[in-house]
Amino acid sequence: MTDPRSGGDSLPEAARESRARSPVPPLSPLRVAVSGARGRVGREIVAALEADPGFECVAAADVDDDLGAALSGASAQVLVDFSVPTAAAGNALTAIGQRVRPVVGTTGIGDAAVTTLRGRCEVAGLGGGVIPNFALGAALLMWLAELCAGHFESCEIIESHHPTKLDAPSGTALRTAERLLEARRGRPFRHPDPRTETLPGTRGGSLGGAGVHSLRLDGPVADQTVIFGAAGQTLSLEHRTTSRTAFVPGVLAAVRAVVATERFYTSLEEVLGLPPAASLGRAMASSEAP
Amino acid sequence: MTDPRSGGDSLPEAARESRARSPVPPLSPLRVAVSGARGRVGREIVAALEADPGFECVAAADVDDDLGAALSGASAQVLVDFSVPTAAAGNALTAIGQRVRPVVGTTGIGDAAVTTLRGRCEVAGLGGGVIPNFALGAALLMWLAELCAGHFESCEIIESHHPTKLDAPSGTALRTAERLLEARRGRPFRHPDPRTETLPGTRGGSLGGAGVHSLRLDGPVADQTVIFGAAGQTLSLEHRTTSRTAFVPGVLAAVRAVVATERFYTSLEEVLGLPPAASLGRAMASSEAP
Amino acid sequence: MTDPRSGGDSLPEAARESRARSPVPPLSPLRVAVSGARGRVGREIVAALEADPGFECVAAADVDDDLGAALSGASAQVLVDFSVPTAAAGNALTAIGQRVRPVVGTTGIGDAAVTTLRGRCEVAGLGGGVIPNFALGAALLMWLAELCAGHFESCEIIESHHPTKLDAPSGTALRTAERLLEARRGRPFRHPDPRTETLPGTRGGSLGGAGVHSLRLDGPVADQTVIFGAAGQTLSLEHRTTSRTAFVPGVLAAVRAVVATERFYTSLEEVLGLPPAASLGRAMASSEAP
Amino acid sequence: MTDPRSGGDSLPEAARESRARSPVPPLSPLRVAVSGARGRVGREIVAALEADPGFECVAAADVDDDLGAALSGASAQVLVDFSVPTAAAGNALTAIGQRVRPVVGTTGIGDAAVTTLRGRCEVAGLGGGVIPNFALGAALLMWLAELCAGHFESCEIIESHHPTKLDAPSGTALRTAERLLEARRGRPFRHPDPRTETLPGTRGGSLGGAGVHSLRLDGPVADQTVIFGAAGQTLSLEHRTTSRTAFVPGVLAAVRAVVATERFYTSLEEVLGLPPAASLGRAMASSEAP
Repeated sequence: MTDPRSGGDSLPEAARESRARSPVPPLSPLRVAVSGARGRVGREIVAALEADPGFECVAAADVDDDLGAALSGASAQVLVDFSVPTAAAGNALTAIGQRVRPVVGTTGIGDAAVTTLRGRCEVAGLGGGVIPNFALGAALLMWLAELCAGHFESCEIIESHHPTKLDAPSGTALRTAERLLEARRGRPFRHPDPRTETLPGTRGGSLGGAGVHSLRLDGPVADQTVIFGAAGQTLSLEHRTTSRTAFVPGVLAAVRAVVATERFYTSLEEVLGLPPAASLGRAMASSEAP
Repeated sequence: MTDPRSGGDSLPEAARESRARSPVPPLSPLRVAVSGARGRVGREIVAALEADPGFECVAAADVDDDLGAALSGASAQVLVDFSVPTAAAGNALTAIGQRVRPVVGTTGIGDAAVTTLRGRCEVAGLGGGVIPNFALGAALLMWLAELCAGHFESCEIIESHHPTKLDAPSGTALRTAERLLEARRGRPFRHPDPRTETLPGTRGGSLGGAGVHSLRLDGPVADQTVIFGAAGQTLSLEHRTTSRTAFVPGVLAAVRAVVATERFYTSLEEVLGLPPAASLGRAMASSEAP
Repeated sequence: MTDPRSGGDSLPEAARESRARSPVPPLSPLRVAVSGARGRVGREIVAALEADPGFECVAAADVDDDLGAALSGASAQVLVDFSVPTAAAGNALTAIGQRVRPVVGTTGIGDAAVTTLRGRCEVAGLGGGVIPNFALGAALLMWLAELCAGHFESCEIIESHHPTKLDAPSGTALRTAERLLEARRGRPFRHPDPRTETLPGTRGGSLGGAGVHSLRLDGPVADQTVIFGAAGQTLSLEHRTTSRTAFVPGVLAAVRAVVATERFYTSLEEVLGLPPAASLGRAMASSEAP
Repeated sequence: MTDPRSGGDSLPEAARESRARSPVPPLSPLRVAVSGARGRVGREIVAALEADPGFECVAAADVDDDLGAALSGASAQVLVDFSVPTAAAGNALTAIGQRVRPVVGTTGIGDAAVTTLRGRCEVAGLGGGVIPNFALGAALLMWLAELCAGHFESCEIIESHHPTKLDAPSGTALRTAERLLEARRGRPFRHPDPRTETLPGTRGGSLGGAGVHSLRLDGPVADQTVIFGAAGQTLSLEHRTTSRTAFVPGVLAAVRAVVATERFYTSLEEVLGLPPAASLGRAMASSEAP
């Protein structure tokens, strides 16, 4: 087991910065344990917990450590797991057994395990969650775009990734276009095709009338822009990723949420309390053309 | 009275473009009259109505015309008024007298007139509205920013206008910063001040911890960007105005809304059905630091 | 002939703004005549000359006016022609006959006419020009992009236009990609293709390895962005058009140039004194991979 | 001494990506040694050399290693030094003694040492360099901005950094504004001040009429945008940093340059062959107001 307090000098930069600017600490920080603590993501989680006065990292175990022993006596309120698919569900069950709420970010644990964990949390009266994607800005961007979808008739999506990404478009861009179309109840955007094409393919892909453009170049980590157009104006929503710490705010929000609500979450959208665009009802309808 | 069908060759460009791409017209377009039809805004409204198959411009009067006569027999469903403060309320009353719903965009008619018009519309069972600002993208941008406010601890606002604008910051930027602070229930963003300032003033203004930066240069019409920052990412919302037709979508949305709902509106937010951020409740709370 | 001083109240906005912020006028403004003065472009030229203390609009003729008479006694130094192809060369010859330098922006006058005008200007010892495109920012953007071309291995071009534009990509985007490839002496950018394409066409067009993406939506007038990528960074060059007055700075620069140099110009690049990227020689070479 | 070939699995990501997409290797890669090879920057340099088929990392020494022994027999053509100020000059002299061209990126070695190294390189007929800043995009951005400076009368500079940066504005923003003013021969941009200021300070700083705005928020690493405005248009130049590998392209360019030219360089601008804006002469002059 790693002592999460060691290594102050090698704290990741995001953590040091966060610490430097933290507001006055609340009276009692949330007590959090981390499994998979020496993995790439786990290290950032530990560092972020250390740096934020709203949290205390009370235990940090990795794959060869005895998680049960690490939790014992630590009085953790939440276990954050970024370990491996074969260990994650077991770690979560160990946590529940010690009345510690599990927040599992490890992907690939399977639907059956999610159902089991949800059931065990409910029986125990504990919050918890299995959340496959913690990218705060990406979740918000898709939601905001849905909210705008009914108010514009033109839409173009641009995503930028490094040149070695194997697929195009990004999964997020594809999902965004699908959700926009759902938010418009299947009514496509206007997507004019050129009469004369002097270079093939420049109009990009189209899903539901939204243009989709994939940039592959050195420099960007993972960026996406959704541009809506109307007479005399554009409204653009842009998410830029600048480091692999981008998942940290989502994890911290989930930790707060499971303690505050004792609910079981399966998406970051739920954690953030983003109501589905459809539930905002009349908003979309009133501005649509008949 | 202007014949709104004349002058096809001189249709404003936005109107011509819109016409070219319009979808299949619905069975019965909304029948709309315009007062102040030869003013700068009125001309654009007439052109936009002409260009959109969802609408029919059935009467167009200007200051010296007899609006009552123009409306008589026109079977208008809505009167859009962009005339002058001294005439607007009278025009709206004339419309109500003929069971035509008034949508008043003329500014400066006074609160008493708004109250009177609301009362008269309610008595007549007619929708209507007095709406001081029809900028679709600006209304949406402020609303979206409110929805994000609780999820980030860093925020910077940049607005760009032409060099002859007399005030700084823009009213929209100031209002945006105020609404962000309200959405955060008074909890300010983190706003670090530099220890060393090698050029005075570069950190800009600050309201509730949101930085506010006013650019004044040739080129832009009226742009605003709100940038939220979190670990490893930014989320930016940007509204750009490229022509004075930017109010058209808001006017058309209001025309549709007063017919569809028979309600009386006093803001574009109401017309668009944008629920106040506070009403989305838990969303803001759950991701806040304790 | 129009009296260019009339109609102060209806001065285009760009002109009024420019006037409001002009610096202290120089001692002797340049004396300029305009032919095609009541056309869409001509009106903006007249307004801009009026608004800028560095210029004086001393004559303004339209198609039915006697240009010779208008020039007579006006002591114009330059004639700016935005008339019609059938009249432009004749107008320019009339100007030369009165020792007025012609700056012809009318397109479509034919190569023979250009050769004739160049010859007549040289014989007369007068500057002049026939310049088909006065878009300042577009010319600069292409030039700057050329200067960067050798320093990056990734490049993506995005252009945005209104939905009714009939061709894709824009001529400027196509020309930009061609000039980038020339500046790299035919060495293409790296342009990775995806292995998995979940929506066809999203990678856009490609010319010389530069990705080309055409957005068609309401709102933009004519925008172009060139993004270069390298390890850990991007460098983006973006030209945005917000009004049809965007040609004004190029025209004024040409007027100044013909008086200052008495040369004959056939492109805005020459007027602006932008040396071809190739002439900057070693710059490109030294940073290229061997 | 580190064997630079070991540790393939832990190659920094930028390096792995670069390797994956490299073009056909040239016949003989440049043979490069690295001192300070286990430092934060040194590790990235080694990884980048490994990943690029145009280079071969033939020796990698750190502070406790015997650089002379490491170079001996390695047939290095260039030594890249990112060690410590007290060792860097000595390392460079060791390299020169073995006819290896030194490229020193270590900062703070003092002017005297630079003069010494330049002299020793010249005597030996070897290229070399001491270069304090290797940020490719920042150097290009400043240069491009200078080239534009004479063509616009409006300019605003925006820089974004993390909240813990102690100074404002950034040194690059300040230097950019200074160089713009030099390129304009002291003629300031137009910088309108508001008559009414509803929130103090929003107009930011001003140097030579260029507005300077410093954003401090979580997310950005080091970004800068220079926006030029003219009638109906803007031209924006934007440099974004997304990782600490942003210095790599500049280092590789310097390695190529010292071999290709056998010159001694003291700035990245020289390495890149960016001619001073002033040397492009008439360009600036011709478009200026008289």
